[in-house]
Amino acid sequence: MNYKMIGLFFARILSVEAIFLLPPLFIALFLKESASVLGFLITFLAVSLICGLFYFLCRGASSNFNAKEGFTCIGISWIALSLLGCLPFVISGEIPNYIDALFETVSGFTTTGASVLSDVESLPRSLLFWRCFLNWLGGMGVLVFLLAFTPGEGKNTGFTMHLLRAESPGPDVGKLVPRMRTTALILYAIYIIMTLLNVIFLLCGGMPLYDALCTAFSSAGTGGFGIRNDGFASFSSYIQIVTTVFILLFGVNFSCYYLLLLRQVRGVFRDEELRLYLALVLGSTVLITWNLIGTYDTVGETIRHAAFQVASIITTTGFASTDFDLWPPFSKAILLLLMLIGACAGSTGGGLKCSRLLILLKNLKRNIEQLIHPNKVLVVRNNGKPVSERVIVNTNAYLAAYVLIIACSILIVSVDAFTVETNVSAVISCFNNIGPGFSAVGPMFNYANYSILSKLVLIFDMLAGRLEIFPILVLFSTAIPQKR
Amino acid sequence: MNYKMIGLFFARILSVEAIFLLPPLFIALFLKESASVLGFLITFLAVSLICGLFYFLCRGASSNFNAKEGFTCIGISWIALSLLGCLPFVISGEIPNYIDALFETVSGFTTTGASVLSDVESLPRSLLFWRCFLNWLGGMGVLVFLLAFTPGEGKNTGFTMHLLRAESPGPDVGKLVPRMRTTALILYAIYIIMTLLNVIFLLCGGMPLYDALCTAFSSAGTGGFGIRNDGFASFSSYIQIVTTVFILLFGVNFSCYYLLLLRQVRGVFRDEELRLYLALVLGSTVLITWNLIGTYDTVGETIRHAAFQVASIITTTGFASTDFDLWPPFSKAILLLLMLIGACAGSTGGGLKCSRLLILLKNLKRNIEQLIHPNKVLVVRNNGKPVSERVIVNTNAYLAAYVLIIACSILIVSVDAFTVETNVSAVISCFNNIGPGFSAVGPMFNYANYSILSKLVLIFDMLAGRLEIFPILVLFSTAIPQKR
Repeated sequence: MNYKMIGLFFARILSVEAIFLLPPLFIALFLKESASVLGFLITFLAVSLICGLFYFLCRGASSNFNAKEGFTCIGISWIALSLLGCLPFVISGEIPNYIDALFETVSGFTTTGASVLSDVESLPRSLLFWRCFLNWLGGMGVLVFLLAFTPGEGKNTGFTMHLLRAESPGPDVGKLVPRMRTTALILYAIYIIMTLLNVIFLLCGGMPLYDALCTAFSSAGTGGFGIRNDGFASFSSYIQIVTTVFILLFGVNFSCYYLLLLRQVRGVFRDEELRLYLALVLGSTVLITWNLIGTYDTVGETIRHAAFQVASIITTTGFASTDFDLWPPFSKAILLLLMLIGACAGSTGGGLKCSRLLILLKNLKRNIEQLIHPNKVLVVRNNGKPVSERVIVNTNAYLAAYVLIIACSILIVSVDAFTVETNVSAVISCFNNIGPGFSAVGPMFNYANYSILSKLVLIFDMLAGRLEIFPILVLFSTAIPQKR
Repeated sequence: MNYKMIGLFFARILSVEAIFLLPPLFIALFLKESASVLGFLITFLAVSLICGLFYFLCRGASSNFNAKEGFTCIGISWIALSLLGCLPFVISGEIPNYIDALFETVSGFTTTGASVLSDVESLPRSLLFWRCFLNWLGGMGVLVFLLAFTPGEGKNTGFTMHLLRAESPGPDVGKLVPRMRTTALILYAIYIIMTLLNVIFLLCGGMPLYDALCTAFSSAGTGGFGIRNDGFASFSSYIQIVTTVFILLFGVNFSCYYLLLLRQVRGVFRDEELRLYLALVLGSTVLITWNLIGTYDTVGETIRHAAFQVASIITTTGFASTDFDLWPPFSKAILLLLMLIGACAGSTGGGLKCSRLLILLKNLKRNIEQLIHPNKVLVVRNNGKPVSERVIVNTNAYLAAYVLIIACSILIVSVDAFTVETNVSAVISCFNNIGPGFSAVGPMFNYANYSILSKLVLIFDMLAGRLEIFPILVLFSTAIPQKR
C-alpha cells in the first residue's frame, strides 16, 4: 500500500472537516456560547494541525490509487472524521463521555440520527447546529464534496472511480457526465438547491431561520437529528407535510434530477427503481392508514402520520411525527421491512436500496426459470439493459454480508439484556442509518442506556451501513490476501 | 407438462401414505379407540381409492421427467399428502377445524412440530402415534422411501435425480453410490437402525415402549411433536441426555455415517460442514451456560438444559426441556440465530443448513478479495474441492428467497396483532421447521390463537422450508416462462 498517498488523501479530507467546523464556531461566537466556542475552536485547531502535518509529511505523493487503497482511504477517513468531529461535544462538556459523543457524531455523519441525548432542547444552539450539519455533510458524502470543490482533483479517473465506488450508495456507480469532477459538482449543486428550497418552504410555514436551516439539513441528508425533544409532533401539519415531501425527494436517485434538468422526463418516470420506490411508499401508506383507522381523530390526520412515518423510514431519515412504537404490530412490521429496504441508490438515504432489491428479485426469478429450463441462457435486465453478472454476484454477496452483520450485531447487543424487539430494531435501525427503533429505542427514547460494548457495535454498524459494508470489511480484513 | 406421468407419480406417493396409515389404524383397533378407528379407516379407504383411480387413469405413462415436472410433482405430492393426512384428526373429532388439522399435519410432515393443541395428553394414543409417525416419515422424505422400497423405481437416473434434488435438503445433492435406488436404501437403512438404537436407549431409561417409539420417531425426523404437555421437562435427565445426543446425530449429514461404515473416519472428521456444526453446538452451549449461571440449581443442570436446547434448536427439532422463553435475551438471541442456521445438509434437519452458510461465507470472503484484486481469478473451495459457480449462484438466490419469504410472511402474520417478537419468531420457527418460538408461541404455548390467514401463511412457510423453497416457488410460478 502507498501510505504516503493515503496520508495526503487523509489530509485533504480533514481540510474539509476544518472548513465545516467554521459555521458552528461562528454561531457559537455570535450567541456567546463560551463552552461551545472553546470546543469548536480547539477542535478546529486540532484538525488543522493534523491536516497540516499530514500535508507536510506526505507532500508530493502520487495519486494512483488501486481498489484496496481506495477502500482503505474511505474507511479510515470516515472513522477519523468521527473521532475528531465529536470533540466539540466532549470539550464543551455537553456529552462528557467520549464514547457517547462518538456515538452521536457517527450517528450524525452516517445520517443515522440515533441519539444518546434525552433532552436535545437544552443543548447550546451551536452544538445543535453541528449535529444537523453533520447530517447534511454525511448525506452527500465528504468525498463528493472534496471532488467537487478542490481544483485539480478528479483528473485521475481511476483514482476517483475507486473512491466514488467506495463511498457512493447503490450497487453500480454511474457517471452523469464523463468528467468525475463535473459529476460531483452537479450532484452538490442539486443538493444545495434542494436544501435551499426546503429552507424556503419551512420559512413560509413560519419557522424561524435557525430552526429551518437545522431541519432542512437533517432532512436533506436523510439524517434525522431533530431540534425538539418530541421530534416533529409539536410542529404544524404544514411543516410535517413539507418535510414528508422533501425527505421523499431526497430519497430519489439524484441522477433522476439531472435527467429532469436535461428534460428527459420520460426516462425518469420509466426508471424501474423509482417506480418500485414510489409503489412502496404509496402501498405502505395505504396499508398503515387502513391499519390505523380509529387511532387518530380524522382520516386526514391518519394519512398525514402514516405518510410522514413511511417517508421518514423508507428514506432512512428517522423523524417521528407521533410515537409509532404504539402503533399496532402490522404497521410496525411494515415499518420494519421498510427499514431494511431503504431508499434509492444514488440518493442520500441508506438501507439495502430499492435497486438492490430489484436485482435480487430479478435474479431470483431468473434462478427459478433456470431450474425449469436448465440449458437456457437467461439475462437479468434493468430498465431494459442487461445487468452484468459481476453486479449480480456483488449484490448477492452484499445481502449475505448484510444478513451476517445484522445477525452478529444482534447477538453482541443482546448481552445488555434489553428485549429481543429492542435489540433487533436497534441494530436494524443503526445499520440502515435510520435512528429510532421500537420499544426501549423507540422514537420517544434514546440509546443512552446501552453499554459501551453495544455502542461500539452500533457505531460499527452505522459506519458499515453508510459506506455499504465493503470499505469497512476491507479495512478490517487487509490480512486476508496474505492468508492464501 | 406430462400430466399423465405426474398423475402416476402422484398415485405412487399416495400408496406410501396408505401403507403408513396402517400402523396407527392397528393401534387404534388394538386400543379400541373407536373414533380414531373410523378416522384412520375412512382416510385409508379414501387414499387407496384416489391412489387406485390415478393408477388406472395414468397407467402406462413414461417416466422421463424434466426438471419442472420434478419440482411440480414434489410440490403437489407434499400438499396432497397433507390434505389427506389430516383427515384422521378431523373425522375422529379431535381437531374438528380442517385448517387446524391441516396445520398440525403439515407441521408433522415437514418435521416442524408446531402445534395447535394445548393438551396433547388427552389425545387418543393412535392419533398421538400418527403425529410422531408423520415426523419420522417427513424426516427422510416420502420420495426417498418410494425410491428405496419400490422395485423397478430408480432405473431412470434423470428422473430420480430431478426428484431427489427437489426433495433432499442442502445446496448440492450427492450420490453415495452410482445407483440411486441403492443410495435411497442405504439412507433408509441408516435411518431405521439409528431410530431403533434411539428406542433401545430410551427403553433402558425406563420409558414404556409406546412412549419410546413416539419419542424416537419425533427425534429421528427432528420433528419435535411430543407426547407430554410439558415437553421434556418432566422426563428424567437420562432421557434428556439421550435425546440431546440422538437429535444431534440426526442433524449430521447421513453420508458421514455411510463413510464411517466404509471406515473412512478421517474423511468424516475433516468435513468442513461437520466441523462448523459441532463448533456451533459447542460454542452456543458454552455461551448459554455462561449466560444462565445462577438460573438453575447446579452447573450440571445448566449445562444439560443449555445443551438440550441448543441441540433441539440447531437440528430444528423443537423439543423443550425447560421454558427457554424465560431465558435472558442473549440466550434467546443465540437460539434465534441457530434457528436460522439449522442442521447439516443431507440430514433430517431443516433451516438454511451449515453447508449453505459455509458457501455464503466463503463467497463473501472471495468477494472482498475480488474487490482488492479485481483481475485475479478466485475459486471457492469446499473440503478442498472447487464449488461450481452455479451452486454459489443458487445458494445466493436461496438466501434472497429465504429473506424475502420470511419478510413477507411476518408482514401478513402481523395482521393478527400479536407482538413483533411473537410474529417474527413464529415465522422463523415454522419456516425453518423448528416448532416453538418465543413469547405467545413459546415452548409452553401453541399456535391455536392465530387466524386462519396466518395459519395458511405458516403452512406455506413450513412446506417451503421443508422442500427448500424452490419446488414450492416453481409450483406457484409455472406462469413465468409464458410471460417472457
